[in-house]
Amino acid sequence: MTDTEETEPPDVGELVPPDRTLMGPGPTDVHDRVRRAAAAPLVGYLDDYYVSVMDDLQELLRYAFRTTNEHTFVVSGTGSAAMETALANLLEPGETVLVPGNGYFGQRMGHVAARAGAEVVTVEAPWGQPLDPADVEAAFERHQPTVFGFVHGETSTGVRQPDVPALTDIAHAHDAYVVADTVPVLGGLPFRTDEWDLDVVYTGSQKCLSAPPGVAPITFNERAVEKVHARETPVRSWYLDLAGVWEYWGEERNYHHTGPISTNYALREACRLIAEEGIEAVWERHRRVGGAIKAGAEAMGVPLHVDDDHWLPTLNPVTVPDGVDDDRVIERVMDEHGIEIVGGLGALAGDIFRVGCMGHSARPGNALEVISALGTVLAEEGADVDPDAGVTAVRRALAE
Amino acid sequence: MTDTEETEPPDVGELVPPDRTLMGPGPTDVHDRVRRAAAAPLVGYLDDYYVSVMDDLQELLRYAFRTTNEHTFVVSGTGSAAMETALANLLEPGETVLVPGNGYFGQRMGHVAARAGAEVVTVEAPWGQPLDPADVEAAFERHQPTVFGFVHGETSTGVRQPDVPALTDIAHAHDAYVVADTVPVLGGLPFRTDEWDLDVVYTGSQKCLSAPPGVAPITFNERAVEKVHARETPVRSWYLDLAGVWEYWGEERNYHHTGPISTNYALREACRLIAEEGIEAVWERHRRVGGAIKAGAEAMGVPLHVDDDHWLPTLNPVTVPDGVDDDRVIERVMDEHGIEIVGGLGALAGDIFRVGCMGHSARPGNALEVISALGTVLAEEGADVDPDAGVTAVRRALAE
Repeated sequence: MTDTEETEPPDVGELVPPDRTLMGPGPTDVHDRVRRAAAAPLVGYLDDYYVSVMDDLQELLRYAFRTTNEHTFVVSGTGSAAMETALANLLEPGETVLVPGNGYFGQRMGHVAARAGAEVVTVEAPWGQPLDPADVEAAFERHQPTVFGFVHGETSTGVRQPDVPALTDIAHAHDAYVVADTVPVLGGLPFRTDEWDLDVVYTGSQKCLSAPPGVAPITFNERAVEKVHARETPVRSWYLDLAGVWEYWGEERNYHHTGPISTNYALREACRLIAEEGIEAVWERHRRVGGAIKAGAEAMGVPLHVDDDHWLPTLNPVTVPDGVDDDRVIERVMDEHGIEIVGGLGALAGDIFRVGCMGHSARPGNALEVISALGTVLAEEGADVDPDAGVTAVRRALAE
Repeated sequence: MTDTEETEPPDVGELVPPDRTLMGPGPTDVHDRVRRAAAAPLVGYLDDYYVSVMDDLQELLRYAFRTTNEHTFVVSGTGSAAMETALANLLEPGETVLVPGNGYFGQRMGHVAARAGAEVVTVEAPWGQPLDPADVEAAFERHQPTVFGFVHGETSTGVRQPDVPALTDIAHAHDAYVVADTVPVLGGLPFRTDEWDLDVVYTGSQKCLSAPPGVAPITFNERAVEKVHARETPVRSWYLDLAGVWEYWGEERNYHHTGPISTNYALREACRLIAEEGIEAVWERHRRVGGAIKAGAEAMGVPLHVDDDHWLPTLNPVTVPDGVDDDRVIERVMDEHGIEIVGGLGALAGDIFRVGCMGHSARPGNALEVISALGTVLAEEGADVDPDAGVTAVRRALAE
């Protein structure tokens, strides 16, 4: 080895994250049991114990997805890696995919599918509105897509796409495959993969499932699995190619890549908490706490930028009042109250605050805290709001 | 929402990983401080605190990579995702890449590059041998590749590719870019990215850096950055496309995907331990403990399946003695002694045990334990070995 002058080691100090209440679009507050699971001793990626953790995860995720799909597993990347896993494996170059244009993540589906070589066509709706099934039907007749991707809860706008079966019916009548993005939804709102006849559904770990980010649950039904197995061209990403990934998650348990063991330990514990509470009770808690945030915002004078019919309890798009600098409000809510909320993304930047209510963050006390803090700062910034009325409305909604 | 019959929640029990000593190819034993870092409270993925963690990681990784490269960062996936990040961003469809044929991970470079649309050509050497620079030179003259990928430490064979500058000189004389896989090396053996003139270098988190798996450090020099910026075709993976990833890790700190916060907390603490010990001392510890394992295996009667000149102290390929069932030995070492070692991969399956010595697993006590356990089991399985001589040799080597 060559002898060289050595550099001084950096001195970066102890890891001391500040105490935050996370009411943004994820990550969420993470339950102490989940964080402790992330710190459990490691084993090998093919150790019998880790294989049993994978088995448990698959069973727990089938429960959360409401599916009996055998091919229910965890992508070793974030939610966007799961989006790419779905689209890059299902689509072959030259096939057409229909994606939504009414939000940042719907549009991302198009960007991701284009990398897989697909022809991307879009069904439009204004940002802040869901897709109209009549527009989806028209797009199907015009473009005859092979795959239809939609976003059940749009993180960028706080809009819930209602009546999922109406969309799957249209797609299946045209022999297309349906991919559902449920990133800020799964484990927060009622979602029924099998009953609603979805072909592929994915989510992130750090939203309503309330684990740390870095892994992403996904499920494929048999019809989608068959399409992947029948591919004529290799998937354009080796890392996300299910031909290899399924050998690790399937009965073979063959090595493909080293599983993200600690994060999957944590996801297992997060899903276990959901199983203990019961998923119907988890759904009801999100509706109740999210409803209290909605009621508080409305009573305070900053209603949600979404119709009640499309309200997404897990991500509330609170209107930015006239004359207020949204970035400054967000910064003050963080600095003076220790609470993370975020601003709008894309077409709604500057128009909305996004107030999340997911997983372990979806607790009654957090609804009170965030409405109190946001109301206080907005009033101090000169907005015409009534924080007391907001907090009272939160208390009443929680008591119902 | 539709009313449906609900399923029973799974009851999977508490997470209780067994107590293992991890002497395989990674993950390693993980220091208690690193595991506690993984359990630290989360913050948002653009929180000022998380951005400071990213800054610290970049500084710590430059120290470990021995580089001043600005573009030193962490891929949000395992080591194979870093391999794909390197090759898929550097290569455009139709360009030629030269990869090694003498091991599982060298061959994987070819599989990954093919997905990026590259023409893959191979320079061969027997499994268990390094590449011969003369063969690399001949391959360059024959194929004129744009990118040359090589594996500095082959996890599948336990072979170290010596004299890295000889390889970079050949490649650069042909105006090619050099990608170095340092997965079981970085933070274990002396490695000098800048002095050896490497264009791209990547590693995994769970090898010598000794953090949990799931993220992968990587560094690009300015020359490689310019090639990526000059691409004429989009990268075929959206998730691993550096055009987006660099906006998150660069000065912009723009959202691309949600960072794997907890695992990066852990990696930061793991790299901080290396900085505290001093990387030269870390390298020396790996040589000393790995050397004790090598001495123990040789004295016991199961020499390494590698020439001394190509010995990789972090992964020792111990010969499987005649008449012994390697799988049964591995299983007994695990079940009766709680120690993970693994078998050969690919062409060396059945011929070697792979005994790792990386990161927090590279401790003197572990060298004693693994030689004692392996010797005991081999003797009980009827092999002609002398476990006492092995343990004595370990003790002597450690005392030197």
